[in-house]
Amino acid sequence: MIKHSIPTLRLRWLTLLLLWPLLLQAAEPLSSWNEGPSKKAITEFVQTVTTQGSKDFVAPAERIAVFDNDGTLWSEQPMYFQILFALDEVKRLAPQHPEWKEQQPFKAVLEGDQKALTESGMDGLIKIVGATHTGISTEAFTANVKAWLAKAVHPKTHKPYTEMVYQPMLELLDYLRANGFKTYIVSGGEVAFMRAWTEEVYGIPPEQVIGTTFVTQYQYNDGKPQILRTPKLAHNDDGPGKPESIDTIIGRRPILAFGNSDGDQQMLQWTAAGTGKRFMGLVHHTDGNREVAYDRESKVGKLDKALDQAKSDNWTLVDMAKEWQRVYSFEPVTKEQQQ
Amino acid sequence: MIKHSIPTLRLRWLTLLLLWPLLLQAAEPLSSWNEGPSKKAITEFVQTVTTQGSKDFVAPAERIAVFDNDGTLWSEQPMYFQILFALDEVKRLAPQHPEWKEQQPFKAVLEGDQKALTESGMDGLIKIVGATHTGISTEAFTANVKAWLAKAVHPKTHKPYTEMVYQPMLELLDYLRANGFKTYIVSGGEVAFMRAWTEEVYGIPPEQVIGTTFVTQYQYNDGKPQILRTPKLAHNDDGPGKPESIDTIIGRRPILAFGNSDGDQQMLQWTAAGTGKRFMGLVHHTDGNREVAYDRESKVGKLDKALDQAKSDNWTLVDMAKEWQRVYSFEPVTKEQQQ
Repeated sequence: MIKHSIPTLRLRWLTLLLLWPLLLQAAEPLSSWNEGPSKKAITEFVQTVTTQGSKDFVAPAERIAVFDNDGTLWSEQPMYFQILFALDEVKRLAPQHPEWKEQQPFKAVLEGDQKALTESGMDGLIKIVGATHTGISTEAFTANVKAWLAKAVHPKTHKPYTEMVYQPMLELLDYLRANGFKTYIVSGGEVAFMRAWTEEVYGIPPEQVIGTTFVTQYQYNDGKPQILRTPKLAHNDDGPGKPESIDTIIGRRPILAFGNSDGDQQMLQWTAAGTGKRFMGLVHHTDGNREVAYDRESKVGKLDKALDQAKSDNWTLVDMAKEWQRVYSFEPVTKEQQQ
Repeated sequence: MIKHSIPTLRLRWLTLLLLWPLLLQAAEPLSSWNEGPSKKAITEFVQTVTTQGSKDFVAPAERIAVFDNDGTLWSEQPMYFQILFALDEVKRLAPQHPEWKEQQPFKAVLEGDQKALTESGMDGLIKIVGATHTGISTEAFTANVKAWLAKAVHPKTHKPYTEMVYQPMLELLDYLRANGFKTYIVSGGEVAFMRAWTEEVYGIPPEQVIGTTFVTQYQYNDGKPQILRTPKLAHNDDGPGKPESIDTIIGRRPILAFGNSDGDQQMLQWTAAGTGKRFMGLVHHTDGNREVAYDRESKVGKLDKALDQAKSDNWTLVDMAKEWQRVYSFEPVTKEQQQ
């Protein structure tokens, strides 16, 4: 046992007291958010539901927060990163599939024929996703995703995709967890694709990631079991699929939900319709300089009907350009946008 | 701030020291388990994976423990309690369905015609489950389950069904959680049926309950959204369905799995095939006095192939009659069975 003399202990306390303002500053939650209406709404909500004795107090077990991923926690332009992964995988796997040279939509991917690829439409996309996401075990697929993430970079910023995450939203996840919330992803992205990196990047463990799923098949293989991913869609976790999977998998109604597109509207409606205080937020992509400005007319992450409902139902609209001091952690804080 | 004089503090320490043996006894884990091979295997496993620095140490986040429910955590004789619920619900709902008086299998249920009911087979059962479990919202269904549990009693013991849980298994759940494990149910039972009571009875929250599911449908209804349960089966959480749902929903491989029947065999295989130390356990229903003795020939909870694999692969077989001092918490400890 280490013994301290009284003067030593006193000195430690003094040091701590002197450092206190610095510690406070470091621990300041939501530090990349300007003092705008969204930060105010978030902190007021959290304070209200976590104040013991308040009529709006919510027990920790019920503090479920759900987040869309694409366009809410990380970028989704020029297209969903998972699609960019699938296209890269077609190129990587091509040597094993000589027939793809003559087969659409694979031929279009290999030749970089954007027109033919677009013409192949949803059917083409399903074939590409099927060929790159299924027919292998979950473990093998996870390894493929990790190998891709380790070397792929975003076409515009040339940063790894796992750095294309929104710094203010990372801070929001931390802030909620520090206040006893359980943070979930509920995304149209495929679940194993996300789990390959969400724990490291967002601090969200696999069991709190909900997404689109394929039908899987348990195989025993003489004592070496594996879970095979079949090309059959099990659940499309988009639009109404989000409250449905929340009900099936979490079994509790969230008290906070964040999205950015019409695909999140039902999840926010479902969250809003519970009793007691609720928080519904939408990231509004208003920032054409630091990110991409898009909403009602966008092909990716279209925000139209949900934008109308956010206005009529008083959901929080986060104005990215005005309310975020920076978008990505690799950017410096944009001083002129501080208030 | 309350100040204590040195003598007062010393007295408190003395009191604590004197009480120490009593405190230890009260906190004794697995106190309804005899000092048999199963208790030894469980405690050795837990000690090994939780010892920092040990080569078999498992980080808390990876300490996933999965439990079957029927026959593993609560009884399943004379038949699955969920079926008993469905039969009672047919009777309760009959006034709203005058046509059931002439329609099988409902007629058989209402008239107590065991022979006709058995003849209706799986098709009949699906109709009964459909009529009592679907066509309503998750919230309404949950309320029905709770109302039934509040008054229904087991045909043999006349105890509420939520008391027909195995005291030694409750202690095992507590022991694992006290050692940083996350405890899950992975059961053939329908997920909302279980969630209505598992948090209160087992301390397992809804998001850690995995089971058989129906396809649900989100409906908006003019600002009053609900999740409708349709009669279409989404996932049958039995046999190979168990490792499949573990992979889809948890996304990590468990390090401990407990079951009692052939429907758990694949879950135990999947658990066993991971790297590092693993624990696979089966509750063996050997106790015809305090519960029901059954295994290879039983219609409910048949344990045959998994019993063979338990023996060949050295899984832990819990001999209920010999290793449990009591089965249910309402029983006194059976002294003669203590060692």
